Amino acid sequence: MSETPEGWEERGKPATLFRRFEFERYAQTRDFLDALAALTKVSGIHPQNINFGSKYVNLTLQAETGEGVTGVERELAVQINALSGGREA
Amino acid sequence: MSETPEGWEERGKPATLFRRFEFERYAQTRDFLDALAALTKVSGIHPQNINFGSKYVNLTLQAETGEGVTGVERELAVQINALSGGREA
Repeated sequence: MSETPEGWEERGKPATLFRRFEFERYAQTRDFLDALAALTKVSGIHPQNINFGSKYVNLTLQAETGEGVTGVERELAVQINALSGGREA
Repeated sequence: MSETPEGWEERGKPATLFRRFEFERYAQTRDFLDALAALTKVSGIHPQNINFGSKYVNLTLQAETGEGVTGVERELAVQINALSGGREA
């Protein structure tokens, strides 16, 4: 996968992928966070940082290698997009 | 309760209580986050911001009223301290 997944932006050094997800209610935020925790358990890859309040989640994925963002991070971003039910921030 | 709970610091405007918790393994971080979610469900009070990575959780509690940090936030902070198993950051 060579393109940046929908809704994500690639940022500087160290190379990261960042996206903000917004929700209407805390219950939705909670469901997303729980699904994300389950995905982390299965994939063994943990986002470098997760920053959330009751109605938003900001996610930063950091490149595993010094070669910048690769297919590994992009594939994870696509999987996370699927968890969010395709909500746009 | 009139004193700032152990390990927490009160910060400026808007008035907040902040604390960083550090853990040795992601599993411990996860247990703490899950306990925190359960506490949020019971108390109905959600931290203004939760910022975490695999081995740390930064928590910000915001004052509910314009009168600054009160017993409500301090009591929640004490309950959160109890969840963490008393770990020092």
